[in-house]
Amino acid sequence: MSENGSNHTVTFLIQCPDQKGLVASISNFFYEREFNILSCQQYTDLLTGHYYMRLQLVLSDLTTTRRQLEEEFGEFGNRINLRWSVHYSDKTQRVALMVSKTSHCLYDILLRWKEDELDCEVPVIISNHPDLESVADQFRVPFHCLPIKNGDKSTQEQAVRELLNKNHIDLVVLARYMQVLSSGFIEEYKGRVINIHHAFLPAFQGGSPYERAYERGVKMIGATAHYATEDLDEGPIIEQDVERVNHELEPKRLKQIGRDIERVVLSRAVKAHLESRIIISGKRTIVFSQGI
Amino acid sequence: MSENGSNHTVTFLIQCPDQKGLVASISNFFYEREFNILSCQQYTDLLTGHYYMRLQLVLSDLTTTRRQLEEEFGEFGNRINLRWSVHYSDKTQRVALMVSKTSHCLYDILLRWKEDELDCEVPVIISNHPDLESVADQFRVPFHCLPIKNGDKSTQEQAVRELLNKNHIDLVVLARYMQVLSSGFIEEYKGRVINIHHAFLPAFQGGSPYERAYERGVKMIGATAHYATEDLDEGPIIEQDVERVNHELEPKRLKQIGRDIERVVLSRAVKAHLESRIIISGKRTIVFSQGI
Amino acid sequence: MSENGSNHTVTFLIQCPDQKGLVASISNFFYEREFNILSCQQYTDLLTGHYYMRLQLVLSDLTTTRRQLEEEFGEFGNRINLRWSVHYSDKTQRVALMVSKTSHCLYDILLRWKEDELDCEVPVIISNHPDLESVADQFRVPFHCLPIKNGDKSTQEQAVRELLNKNHIDLVVLARYMQVLSSGFIEEYKGRVINIHHAFLPAFQGGSPYERAYERGVKMIGATAHYATEDLDEGPIIEQDVERVNHELEPKRLKQIGRDIERVVLSRAVKAHLESRIIISGKRTIVFSQGI
Amino acid sequence: MSENGSNHTVTFLIQCPDQKGLVASISNFFYEREFNILSCQQYTDLLTGHYYMRLQLVLSDLTTTRRQLEEEFGEFGNRINLRWSVHYSDKTQRVALMVSKTSHCLYDILLRWKEDELDCEVPVIISNHPDLESVADQFRVPFHCLPIKNGDKSTQEQAVRELLNKNHIDLVVLARYMQVLSSGFIEEYKGRVINIHHAFLPAFQGGSPYERAYERGVKMIGATAHYATEDLDEGPIIEQDVERVNHELEPKRLKQIGRDIERVVLSRAVKAHLESRIIISGKRTIVFSQGI
Repeated sequence: MSENGSNHTVTFLIQCPDQKGLVASISNFFYEREFNILSCQQYTDLLTGHYYMRLQLVLSDLTTTRRQLEEEFGEFGNRINLRWSVHYSDKTQRVALMVSKTSHCLYDILLRWKEDELDCEVPVIISNHPDLESVADQFRVPFHCLPIKNGDKSTQEQAVRELLNKNHIDLVVLARYMQVLSSGFIEEYKGRVINIHHAFLPAFQGGSPYERAYERGVKMIGATAHYATEDLDEGPIIEQDVERVNHELEPKRLKQIGRDIERVVLSRAVKAHLESRIIISGKRTIVFSQGI
Repeated sequence: MSENGSNHTVTFLIQCPDQKGLVASISNFFYEREFNILSCQQYTDLLTGHYYMRLQLVLSDLTTTRRQLEEEFGEFGNRINLRWSVHYSDKTQRVALMVSKTSHCLYDILLRWKEDELDCEVPVIISNHPDLESVADQFRVPFHCLPIKNGDKSTQEQAVRELLNKNHIDLVVLARYMQVLSSGFIEEYKGRVINIHHAFLPAFQGGSPYERAYERGVKMIGATAHYATEDLDEGPIIEQDVERVNHELEPKRLKQIGRDIERVVLSRAVKAHLESRIIISGKRTIVFSQGI
Repeated sequence: MSENGSNHTVTFLIQCPDQKGLVASISNFFYEREFNILSCQQYTDLLTGHYYMRLQLVLSDLTTTRRQLEEEFGEFGNRINLRWSVHYSDKTQRVALMVSKTSHCLYDILLRWKEDELDCEVPVIISNHPDLESVADQFRVPFHCLPIKNGDKSTQEQAVRELLNKNHIDLVVLARYMQVLSSGFIEEYKGRVINIHHAFLPAFQGGSPYERAYERGVKMIGATAHYATEDLDEGPIIEQDVERVNHELEPKRLKQIGRDIERVVLSRAVKAHLESRIIISGKRTIVFSQGI
Repeated sequence: MSENGSNHTVTFLIQCPDQKGLVASISNFFYEREFNILSCQQYTDLLTGHYYMRLQLVLSDLTTTRRQLEEEFGEFGNRINLRWSVHYSDKTQRVALMVSKTSHCLYDILLRWKEDELDCEVPVIISNHPDLESVADQFRVPFHCLPIKNGDKSTQEQAVRELLNKNHIDLVVLARYMQVLSSGFIEEYKGRVINIHHAFLPAFQGGSPYERAYERGVKMIGATAHYATEDLDEGPIIEQDVERVNHELEPKRLKQIGRDIERVVLSRAVKAHLESRIIISGKRTIVFSQGI
């Protein structure tokens, strides 16, 4: 990486109805502005006739202000009916981690963050319980304990939102946060709240999935990372994984194995989001591969 | 392998409430009768206090009639409350394959059977459609087309049962047979009907699982082999597997990938059953590993 | 698919040194000729500065002869230093299967071919042994037994090459063909011979991999499909997979499990080749995902 | 768990030439002493005629001293040619972690230890570099930096051995310790040093496996945990795993993915050792499943 940040990138995420000449007209837009295209990933959903693109440019090629680029692309996009967003890699995203009592997902994200696998800032950890303060301390991240008092969830949630706003949070990661968020919260942070569900959805929605997996005698258990939506456990799936198990493993062991899956699945989902590799499309996600 | 078939085995599948001295008393029973124990696999479910054992003996060590062995073991078992079954490897099991129109599972089982991976006889293939007759012909297995006429399912099922009885069938494999069996049928062949479900149960129970997996945007698809029970798709699971997929794959491609999983999962389940490695315990199965 | 074949595609596989404006200039080339771009997959190897593209067009958009398109693209490509090939989906590829004595890979490819998973013709099966003639007969494919007589391999290979030429073969699949091909053969069919190696290369190169895997006590076994090159077992890898095993499994069982992996791995590699999804780059392959 | 520790277990690991009546005579030995057999796992290697057993007893059933039990079992074992070891779960094993500069394996083991997944004490972390002291501090484990000065490896190793002895270490875990141990060290700690190798052995023995995996274009990368022996990278394999990769992933990304595999593989191996589930047999290991 050079001193003047010449390795930084601009990423456009684009979706629109499929039409002739899309690649040519979009790549021309950037070619005329002398951008080098680092990568261009596309996907056409032939069932719905919908088109998706992820375009990575070299930020140092930019010869105008960012605002001007966005306005020009906005006008261009309006003519061909694009929905789009743009992400600059030199604008590090600010991530809030929300937890309750279990530490494995929290630890995993903090470690990857520290090892530079996750390109973000973590200005705040929020919990409804005091248990994980020492973990936050280990990594020198401010820890806020916001318990729900007398069952008054809305007051607590209001405090959470103020904290998120004050910290200019771009992404909320529910790293085993055991509270349901209100629809107002979900709406405000639409597409910016990632949750880890401790089951291979849509199997075992709801609570105690490992106990139920044991009773049902399934031969594999899994975990699912998804964007939070109002319908609990129904949000667009970002990543899933499973592990083979057998009859010998009690629910306690299944939970231990499940923890390993949860860790990895949540971290992969957060990484994909931070690298602007995800487009949400209805109940599905388009997750572009992690080439560059 | 010696000429007189001395490689044949006797396998006992045993379950009972856990109690002191089980291994010693059972192994003594066979030691006193001069049996060599080839393998002895056990599992204790500590949650329910239930004990399971699979015991393999050398058949040529048998110094009495089989009936005498079974009577003596029956008396012994009654005293310590055992439920058990016994299987002799020189008594090849007779398997009926039931199919409808898709050939991949049928082919897979026939190929493995031909390559000696599945130790069984296949005296009959039954279908409610004529489509797969040529496959049966390729492998020289009699093919019976028993269509459902005028919606009269019970008459057709009666014909199926007669055919099974006449052929002394030990195991019925529903290799993508697209008809629900009556509770009477299920009861008669309890623990002896294996079905392949084209989804990772309990996700996507019911029809069109690949279309639904696509709509839901899951990142893995799977298949499940289970014993048939009255509650459709709720029988004890024998084997499952999954494959990673992504947004690019249309339902048609998911089906192709799914076919590969179904093939392998069904064949593994049938193999485990034929090798007497499965004990059914309520809604779960104990599947002993395929050591010997 | 419409009657006039309007679903057919043209696929360009392109590689060149990375340079500014590639996407724009290539997509413009086709936009000017009124092609609809069905999909455009790219990959830039930042370590070597090399660029790879797979571009799928709608064949019915073609307004000139194929020769004219190729000449124009050739001129265009020369100016920017492209290496490329073009594939028309209405020109079905002709595949020769070469086998020895084991049937599992042969069966798998024939079944997928019959089930329309593999879009190709199979005009000939060649073997150095007579064993698998009946399999060829089942699928009504001409079977040629070309044994090696008196150790004279070159005479036999000459007969093989004549048969391939006479049948206008595009791709040779070594479906467990247990003979080494001469460097002359390899040169003539460069990038058009796919082999299945029964180990997870580069582990266990050479013979008896399952015996050696057992002795070494590995916990997973695998298989590798690769393009054949002069250096045996060193050709560019197309596809690999593995399965978990344990100490209980004897070499014979490992072989059975290995057969399942070999089947799937070889078929996936052949499918990727037939769908023009592979670019060979030195010792590596770029395998584009199977979106469309 | 009751107050008087009645959940503690005694585990015997046994191997011997296969012979008639082994299960009966061994289980009788313990039945006569009024032991309850919690689990009894066996494996007979039919190729070598060797027999392996893992037997778990309830510790509170013990009516004699441990020494007396061991003497009696020793006499019994001598008569039938047993090699055996015994492990008491109330005698927590003492584990030394040896590291160099990379933290991911160290963190993983410390986290699992803290979360009670690994039943052990960790009295000491030893490194030849100072880098990871802060990690040790986070978990309040004494950290000893023993650098190699002027290339004098034997002096440094002597200091390591003194530290291990002083701390009564039962198991040494090389959690990415980048120094070769002397044959004297290996001999002293035979079967008690676990190493993680950052490749799917026997592929990519030696250094820079991720770079070589990239150059070779393999489609999966892996890691291997094994007991350290004099022949580097040739020790008995305990656990392996792999992950699917593709051409897009540069060596740097492969390393990140590799770290996740290394973590899990090393921890599983350490867990199996701590739970007395491993018998070493020449170049292989028998790893009994993690039932109880």
